[in-house]
Amino acid sequence: MKKALGPNTLLYPTPSVVVGTYDKEGKANVMTAAWAGICCSDPPCIGVSLRKATYTYGNIVERKAFTVCIASDDYVKEVDYFGIATGRKGDKLLAAGLTPVGSASVDAPYVKEFPYALECTLIHTIELGLHTQFIGRIVDVVAEESVLDEKGRIDPLKVKPLVFAPGFKQYYSLGTPLGRAFSIGKALIK
Amino acid sequence: MKKALGPNTLLYPTPSVVVGTYDKEGKANVMTAAWAGICCSDPPCIGVSLRKATYTYGNIVERKAFTVCIASDDYVKEVDYFGIATGRKGDKLLAAGLTPVGSASVDAPYVKEFPYALECTLIHTIELGLHTQFIGRIVDVVAEESVLDEKGRIDPLKVKPLVFAPGFKQYYSLGTPLGRAFSIGKALIK
Repeated sequence: MKKALGPNTLLYPTPSVVVGTYDKEGKANVMTAAWAGICCSDPPCIGVSLRKATYTYGNIVERKAFTVCIASDDYVKEVDYFGIATGRKGDKLLAAGLTPVGSASVDAPYVKEFPYALECTLIHTIELGLHTQFIGRIVDVVAEESVLDEKGRIDPLKVKPLVFAPGFKQYYSLGTPLGRAFSIGKALIK
Repeated sequence: MKKALGPNTLLYPTPSVVVGTYDKEGKANVMTAAWAGICCSDPPCIGVSLRKATYTYGNIVERKAFTVCIASDDYVKEVDYFGIATGRKGDKLLAAGLTPVGSASVDAPYVKEFPYALECTLIHTIELGLHTQFIGRIVDVVAEESVLDEKGRIDPLKVKPLVFAPGFKQYYSLGTPLGRAFSIGKALIK
């Protein structure tokens, strides 16, 4: 018998992504968001939910584009900072010593020092309550050559993405490989 | 300069959740879904995207409820199997030797052997293309006492959730703690 804990947003693992946007004046901004997830394979889409109070919210409404940058865990402090500070008053990238690069495919910047980014155009806006879900169509994925494997795939152990546990408010590293997806379970097919 | 890889659903980390539903006849079914993510804090909501072809899709449309079960990585084979096989013809839980338990708060079952589950009622259905995103309001979270810490919180290191890398098609364990969220980044505030 499980214990009822009440309603809460306790999904383990949760990603901790850095959303890159431009404001009206073209200033690059980044913010960390945990409420993100792939939501369609074709067209490839990702949902990112933000509060209206964030600077990034207005930027996405204005520019209809954003990037979803995946940091390596070497940047845990910077990622956390991007979720605490606001870009309304200052330049978070400058403060963190990181570099915005304009995406070639969408009207948004990504973070040069992070291993890869999803470049997205806004296709749906869904009002859910405290958060608004922006659904972006992933029009390109850009990655450092150093995180690709011999087949040209993005290798998670080279990326070293941050793994977030909401509620517990803790970041973790990626652990060890446990098995191949769409393969290891075949053992149970009778 | 990053290399362009083309559009793809490469979010690291991605969860690997087990969605529990009842069919018309009341048979419990489970399927594994990777396209899942929290999308609102208030009301607490989770989005789970499914293809129309899945048995679970019809069950959610019919019952307007589902659970999102988080497995420990001891069950990597079972979780993978739940994503490969269909419940249309057989009983996946029976085949895997796992046990459905009826949720007290919603019209859906969770998996007894898994450490915790989010109990959800369907509040939005969003057509995105190959996948339909079901947004569920999390009405309760139920957990085994054994995965709670001394403060009653669900401890990720006790849960040992599966961490999935789409595209790379690999499951990983959760790694080591790297820092406190909303805290470690304060070092960068000038």
